[in-house]
Amino acid sequence: MTLDKRIYLDHAATTPLDPRVLETMLPYLTEFWGNPSSLYLEAREARRGLDNARKTVAETLGCKTQEIVFTSGGSESDNLAIRGVAYGNRRRGSHIITTAIEHHAVLHTFERLEKEGFTVTYLPVDREGFVDLKALEEAVTAETSLVSIMYANNEVGTIEPIAEAARIVKERNPHCVFHTDGVQAVGALDVNIDRLGVDLFSLTAHKFYGPKGFGALYVRSRTPFLPQTLGGSQERDRRAGTENIAGAVGLAKALEMAYDEFEQRNAHSAALRDRLLTDVPRFTPKVRINGTTDLDRRLANNASFAFEYVEGEAILMALDLAGIAASSGSACTSGSLEPSHVLTAMGVPLEIARGSVRLTVGKDNTMEEIDRMLEVLPNVVARLRSLSPLAGAAEAARAGTGRG
Amino acid sequence: MTLDKRIYLDHAATTPLDPRVLETMLPYLTEFWGNPSSLYLEAREARRGLDNARKTVAETLGCKTQEIVFTSGGSESDNLAIRGVAYGNRRRGSHIITTAIEHHAVLHTFERLEKEGFTVTYLPVDREGFVDLKALEEAVTAETSLVSIMYANNEVGTIEPIAEAARIVKERNPHCVFHTDGVQAVGALDVNIDRLGVDLFSLTAHKFYGPKGFGALYVRSRTPFLPQTLGGSQERDRRAGTENIAGAVGLAKALEMAYDEFEQRNAHSAALRDRLLTDVPRFTPKVRINGTTDLDRRLANNASFAFEYVEGEAILMALDLAGIAASSGSACTSGSLEPSHVLTAMGVPLEIARGSVRLTVGKDNTMEEIDRMLEVLPNVVARLRSLSPLAGAAEAARAGTGRG
Repeated sequence: MTLDKRIYLDHAATTPLDPRVLETMLPYLTEFWGNPSSLYLEAREARRGLDNARKTVAETLGCKTQEIVFTSGGSESDNLAIRGVAYGNRRRGSHIITTAIEHHAVLHTFERLEKEGFTVTYLPVDREGFVDLKALEEAVTAETSLVSIMYANNEVGTIEPIAEAARIVKERNPHCVFHTDGVQAVGALDVNIDRLGVDLFSLTAHKFYGPKGFGALYVRSRTPFLPQTLGGSQERDRRAGTENIAGAVGLAKALEMAYDEFEQRNAHSAALRDRLLTDVPRFTPKVRINGTTDLDRRLANNASFAFEYVEGEAILMALDLAGIAASSGSACTSGSLEPSHVLTAMGVPLEIARGSVRLTVGKDNTMEEIDRMLEVLPNVVARLRSLSPLAGAAEAARAGTGRG
Repeated sequence: MTLDKRIYLDHAATTPLDPRVLETMLPYLTEFWGNPSSLYLEAREARRGLDNARKTVAETLGCKTQEIVFTSGGSESDNLAIRGVAYGNRRRGSHIITTAIEHHAVLHTFERLEKEGFTVTYLPVDREGFVDLKALEEAVTAETSLVSIMYANNEVGTIEPIAEAARIVKERNPHCVFHTDGVQAVGALDVNIDRLGVDLFSLTAHKFYGPKGFGALYVRSRTPFLPQTLGGSQERDRRAGTENIAGAVGLAKALEMAYDEFEQRNAHSAALRDRLLTDVPRFTPKVRINGTTDLDRRLANNASFAFEYVEGEAILMALDLAGIAASSGSACTSGSLEPSHVLTAMGVPLEIARGSVRLTVGKDNTMEEIDRMLEVLPNVVARLRSLSPLAGAAEAARAGTGRG
């Protein structure tokens, strides 16, 4: 088994750990393993690593170190943000708002809160996946205590107008707290908290070449917030548990590198993405682009397509055999038979949504790999369609010789 | 700065990552970094690592693989267990029981539930830290939905009679769910679930030479359980979030090694501990042993003392300067000015509890290190007492010349 020659086009699902990131983590897995809550030398070395990591994250986001809460990843950050504020800000009201296209870490948390008695508004999106800001403005009332809108969609790469959304919310109700799930945005977009104007921001390291199982949540000072994991007083009493220092150091290094190399990484990704968005439809008939074609409002690394008359999963399996890793949408729902809630919310018909394939490029992909993909994909799709009764029926119908 | 020559006697706070454990983790930090929820080759390799890790953990505990939920550590496991069952089993009743000497990850979670409307019984312990089983028996009613009793105390090393406690609870109310915080017990005690008779068992890797930021929760099949971190369907829908495969592999390897080397590690620890329990009081006047002197009912690696007329924190600082790392109790409450809730519950007077020092040995400590400790500690204590007005006053009072 070799992974050497394979082409990985699923960077939205996860990214490899950058060897330079691993290098910064290793001292905390070998030499500096003390419990940072303790008082002796071994602990102080660990504490220093943790403090420096927090400082780097805060500098990148343009916030204070005490506003960063380290977590075990994006799902925990989203859950903590939403439940922390929904309960912590409940005296302001029990109405909370999100969108129909959030990651399940957000959506399922809102659904739970709805069962617990909160009133939830799920904002619609347009055909390109942009949230309806007019609907947002109308939805926010004096009883709205929390709004959560993702910064960029993980399936179709649509970049939401977060700064504008936050401004609208605050104008309507200055006590309403604004959270954004920034998991897919970090490394691809500006993450300056002041420019965004958000109160909470979720991120996770493994989406930008950091380690799995480690994330962070920015929480603006004085945000009403009820901690969810109780115990020791780690993270200033906002998230108990012995700190994963290697994880923190890795997240910080990966984040720093993502913004040091921001321009070049995104220009590189955009070149590969643009090639895919242009040439996949050129080489394959009956394909639609999922998400926006306004490329400045789309993640630089995301290309998503819906192939008619064929199952996305079948394409993925054939690609895998050809040495190419891709996804039908969110990794978290792989294997599910449900259609994507994101595509459904965007109005993509079920039979089209089922043919979806998401290609997300990364810093180590090459144009040669994209060339190879563009050779393989049209053949895969043509072969599958030739086996598909749906495609046959449709073609036959078009030719006026419908077989019934 | 060198950590080479230092003597580490705080293994209850955390342990170094075993190099053999790190070695098993590294392939998952370099080569097999796929998202295990995805469908392609890279993902399958990651999935295999995760599955094998889960199998090892299940084998060690003698349970089914699907009963293991991976988490980010002991605090999350405890929070998840308690809230998961308190909410999940609420139709059986809102009365829940724990003890006065639990880790704060358990205690603070019960306190939160109490605020939310649950009725909580905090069981007392005796002077040695053993939970009162008679009080337990009397406390369990038809409305009791959850009992959580720790397997071994992190501060004083007392081993609780968990199997007997679980039997009592089930006899009184078969629908009552029994959780044990096994964080300090793993590696030191039998963890066979059937012999223990518990429904949930929390553990964390960094207490037995595994990585920080990774733990597990055993949840018996068919236990009423409401997941707390929502999102993707990882961990069979019981704990969302992209899996930390390196963490899982590290936890499994560390656990396997702990039980492969169980006899020798515990015999070694007990020899060092016994030397401390015997010779610290022999070489230092006015010292009490915290916890039980029934050595079979005490963790093999735990020695805890209360030195009269001196602050524990002052001893720790002096020890640190002398190259020795020790603790006053729980690492999670280091720096707190509160007296230990464990010692308080055991009836240790405040002025004595303040002089507490916990020494917890590990597999790599040597008898020479204990010799060195036994040279250093009496001098440190004597010097601090010579500076203490309390000690002077007490001595004077004893001599019949009290200064008022």
